[in-house]
Amino acid sequence: MDAIDDLIKLLSRLPGIGGKSAARMTYRLIGTDPNYNKRLGEAIATLQDKIHRCPICGAFTETDPCPICQDERRDRSVMCVVEQSQDVITIQNSGIYSGLFHVLGGAISPLNSIGPDQLSFSSLRKRIEEGSFKEIIIATNPNEEGDITALYIKRMFKDSNIKITRLAAGLPVGGDLEYVDRKTLEISLKARMDV
Amino acid sequence: MDAIDDLIKLLSRLPGIGGKSAARMTYRLIGTDPNYNKRLGEAIATLQDKIHRCPICGAFTETDPCPICQDERRDRSVMCVVEQSQDVITIQNSGIYSGLFHVLGGAISPLNSIGPDQLSFSSLRKRIEEGSFKEIIIATNPNEEGDITALYIKRMFKDSNIKITRLAAGLPVGGDLEYVDRKTLEISLKARMDV
Repeated sequence: MDAIDDLIKLLSRLPGIGGKSAARMTYRLIGTDPNYNKRLGEAIATLQDKIHRCPICGAFTETDPCPICQDERRDRSVMCVVEQSQDVITIQNSGIYSGLFHVLGGAISPLNSIGPDQLSFSSLRKRIEEGSFKEIIIATNPNEEGDITALYIKRMFKDSNIKITRLAAGLPVGGDLEYVDRKTLEISLKARMDV
Repeated sequence: MDAIDDLIKLLSRLPGIGGKSAARMTYRLIGTDPNYNKRLGEAIATLQDKIHRCPICGAFTETDPCPICQDERRDRSVMCVVEQSQDVITIQNSGIYSGLFHVLGGAISPLNSIGPDQLSFSSLRKRIEEGSFKEIIIATNPNEEGDITALYIKRMFKDSNIKITRLAAGLPVGGDLEYVDRKTLEISLKARMDV
């Protein structure tokens, strides 16, 4: 197998990249600035050496703790619970939320045998108990797993005085939080409902 | 800028990859088998060290000359002239052509100031003169630049006894050869016309 085929096959394993896209990327890489290729190759090869999960919130980070957990200006009375680390970025990039985050590492999924024990609920409970939160915003995906997970969080804190809300209607049902546009996200955050 | 943002920005410069795709790829890379990342990073970083243009046909290759130019079983009476190296792969993968190839390195484009001098016409002429070709199949893209280039090739060999043909109707006009499906390519190759 030659270098071109090899790279096309490797790239094809990335999400959303088919054989033709991978070929197109590979030929672009052959003709591009060599410095760019070295930087891209290095960035991919060393990514996992640099990135780890924040010991507090569970988001991927290079610093310890992550920049959001470190930031004194964040509103420490609101906690936004998300499934994946990239959901933190999606919400951060919208610029309409200034509280803290907690990354579960997924959603409860009986079909995929993912139970609460495999997600970071115990550290969430600990953070909530030790903090002075007034509200928990559940930002799980608007699908069945996200619904089950939201219900689980609601029950977990039902005896506390903390307000529990969830991102509102406006999110496309069955979709992925990662692909929501800023406007839809803003509407759903503003119109968030009690669960 | 952290490692995640850095990689997202680098990936966004690839053809067909927007910011969201790049982010999705990056987060997949964080969670994937470390061995895959090392291999992919290495494959990208070393690609240009391994790949060069075949001194005969101009296609990208690791060997010298390329496997097609070396292959004694190819039909050396037919020459297929393409714009880009990836067009060779597209036609090869269709499995319906067994002759030789010549890669021009682009198409004549007055709008982009690309004239015949910047393309490999002189080596094409030399190969045709020194070989025993009966037919030249022009497989330039079915757009204006491809048409001009086809006309240029036709004129170049008009005084020879070589049959000059071009991939037939069936190619979507204004499109890119790279994205043609096998069936359309087969029809257009079988129904190729004199120019």
